[in-house]
Amino acid sequence: MKIYQNISKDEWAELCARPELENAGLSATIKKIFTAVAKRGDTALCEFTKQFDKVKLNDLLASEAEIAAADVQTPSELKRAIKIAARNIRKFHKSQLSRSTKIIETTPGVKCWREPRAIENVGLYVPGGTAPLFSTVLMLGIPAQLAGCENIVLTTPPRQDGTVDPTILFTANLVGIKKIAKVGGAQAIAALALGTKTVPKVDKIFGPGNQFVTAAKQMAQNYGVAIDMPAGPSEVMMIADETARADFVAADLLSQAEHGVDSQVVLLTTRHTFAKNVIGEVEKQLLDLPRREIAEQSLKNSLVLVVKNLNEAMEFSNLYAPEHLILSIANAPKWARQVKNAGSVFLGNFSPESAGDYASGTNHTLPTSGWAKSNSGLTMEDFYKFVSFQEVSPAGARRLAPTVTTMAEAEGLMAHKRAMEIRTSD
Amino acid sequence: MKIYQNISKDEWAELCARPELENAGLSATIKKIFTAVAKRGDTALCEFTKQFDKVKLNDLLASEAEIAAADVQTPSELKRAIKIAARNIRKFHKSQLSRSTKIIETTPGVKCWREPRAIENVGLYVPGGTAPLFSTVLMLGIPAQLAGCENIVLTTPPRQDGTVDPTILFTANLVGIKKIAKVGGAQAIAALALGTKTVPKVDKIFGPGNQFVTAAKQMAQNYGVAIDMPAGPSEVMMIADETARADFVAADLLSQAEHGVDSQVVLLTTRHTFAKNVIGEVEKQLLDLPRREIAEQSLKNSLVLVVKNLNEAMEFSNLYAPEHLILSIANAPKWARQVKNAGSVFLGNFSPESAGDYASGTNHTLPTSGWAKSNSGLTMEDFYKFVSFQEVSPAGARRLAPTVTTMAEAEGLMAHKRAMEIRTSD
Repeated sequence: MKIYQNISKDEWAELCARPELENAGLSATIKKIFTAVAKRGDTALCEFTKQFDKVKLNDLLASEAEIAAADVQTPSELKRAIKIAARNIRKFHKSQLSRSTKIIETTPGVKCWREPRAIENVGLYVPGGTAPLFSTVLMLGIPAQLAGCENIVLTTPPRQDGTVDPTILFTANLVGIKKIAKVGGAQAIAALALGTKTVPKVDKIFGPGNQFVTAAKQMAQNYGVAIDMPAGPSEVMMIADETARADFVAADLLSQAEHGVDSQVVLLTTRHTFAKNVIGEVEKQLLDLPRREIAEQSLKNSLVLVVKNLNEAMEFSNLYAPEHLILSIANAPKWARQVKNAGSVFLGNFSPESAGDYASGTNHTLPTSGWAKSNSGLTMEDFYKFVSFQEVSPAGARRLAPTVTTMAEAEGLMAHKRAMEIRTSD
Repeated sequence: MKIYQNISKDEWAELCARPELENAGLSATIKKIFTAVAKRGDTALCEFTKQFDKVKLNDLLASEAEIAAADVQTPSELKRAIKIAARNIRKFHKSQLSRSTKIIETTPGVKCWREPRAIENVGLYVPGGTAPLFSTVLMLGIPAQLAGCENIVLTTPPRQDGTVDPTILFTANLVGIKKIAKVGGAQAIAALALGTKTVPKVDKIFGPGNQFVTAAKQMAQNYGVAIDMPAGPSEVMMIADETARADFVAADLLSQAEHGVDSQVVLLTTRHTFAKNVIGEVEKQLLDLPRREIAEQSLKNSLVLVVKNLNEAMEFSNLYAPEHLILSIANAPKWARQVKNAGSVFLGNFSPESAGDYASGTNHTLPTSGWAKSNSGLTMEDFYKFVSFQEVSPAGARRLAPTVTTMAEAEGLMAHKRAMEIRTSD
């Protein structure tokens, strides 16, 4: 881990740059997969699953028997933990749901309002890989279910033996997801975007994934299907002052670094000695870490920046726009007001990122690669859309007519003008 | 206008299909423009403006003198109309703004909340063309200003004489936009995405445009810049029963048809005679319409569908997911509850689309081409993002720890586990 000090602001932008993701070359592959799925539906899905996941499936859907068995197979301590996490996530997301409709009479006789409507058909993608990411099932499934999405389908790659990890099945069942398709990668996204006999076409696709999944989600948009957000490698920024503990900070940096070799880890601190202490602690904690090799690789790209003061740290952080921001500083709530761009913020010394990754209640699906400048992490609003309504009375139409007709005429749209005039002309 | 009757539901999907937009071939052109703007900044913008808009500009920004002159040049009746529309739009959009922060204690000692933060830098694109679309300045500028976006830049193509239409300048000034760049097309989007000396790089780009602008907005996303929504040709769906007036309905259909030759116009009605009456009225009203040729062209693709009853009409409408939906039916508010997918809905016989296009208060930037299934029209939420926060006390960490550590271990992420354990281990 390299320590940067006395860095001028001119160099900040360069330090904030994320590695460029190479997926331009993928589009031909992805296009081929979409074409095959469009033409041959489930048959194509089974072929790709055989090719990429090395599994021959007879049925793409998880059966009721498999789901029932998963309940038995999941250890009860883990089930209890997942239920507690689900309760917290549900509590927090429920608080975001506002069904109240304010009717605004903008002009006497002209009423405007908006109403939330759940997105009817949503697809949730849960990646496979070295470990089953059942926490992602909670983070995607709970808001979808709270919003009232009518059809929720979850897709996840099968394991080598053709089954889905029981914890994923248990969690999906817990949050009320009935349809679980054993398909992963770009072919899963193609299925959700186009629809097959087994996998229904959806209106919006949610969930993280590797570069193939990300590229496929981008392509899904060309088929009229929305996606949650652009995805990139996970990242954490920590701001630490003299009240921070080096061992806590090191543990948090490592919890990000173990995600993947492309994880981004950044520490901003006001003291050079503290930076050195943290590096020492990181080296110590690395020793017995099962994912040590991954973490070491990712730490090579890490950034430890000694800043003049906390104001400068906040300024840098807002330019970087981190996915996760941990404020291990005194008066963290006061400093939090200065946060402009971040996905999820962790205040004080006892709020590690892993609390939010699993169980504090906030969503762990967050904008990466600087997208926090324009995007939120997943919120309830992502699972519905607002429809706007207006009701104009005959008197309201008379009052509004001069404004509308004058503007329509100035824009050269005479049929627009007439549509208003004809309603007020007797 | 062709009348369809006794159509089986199997054929609905085909009737709902929008024309495919050909812009795949554009990407090489757009890429070239982005590369030139990245390399040569303002110089490239001036070159493209000369090439595409046939204007040689000395200064890309509208000067204060121009803005002041615009105030004099805009007729006072039009100024009054714009101010009334602005007041209505402000009223409705302000009602969407919720700054209240609910702190949820999901577990004793674990507080979660979210706070809206305005997107700092936004770019508003206002197209040129046959008429100045100053109403778009209101629809993009008012929410940006209400949200508190720090830097708002408006770009719009210059006219042949190098000036910007005074009504656009007047409206921009009215809503508090100080920076107006005279640049249009893909080069304007490239400038907003990349930044030049004159046009600042923004975090999100809003506004309608032709196929070049749309393709450029798609490309902007590759540079980390968000966009408001995918754009397609404008569309209206009308549902009319025996309480509707054929002349009103015809006027509304024409107000959509005059937008452009690719506009989509759909009428659903329960009675064949009414359909014929509307067609007769459309032909009559077409006669003295200045944009008659455009409207005639667009009406060729129009759809008049005689349905069995209003339930069927609502079902078809939800499948189509229209940008604008006019309910010229008795008990419109009751039927409105059945609307699942639509951008903006107009209730009753006295609520023409043009009311919403200009002055009712709702936003006229709306999802087209079926995107209403997943997207809202522009709302205040589009101009900010939610940042989530969590603050865990030492006691809260102890309570949360068993849940987090059990889940982290099951996902194979031991550094995640340790980040929690280390805080609760003494």
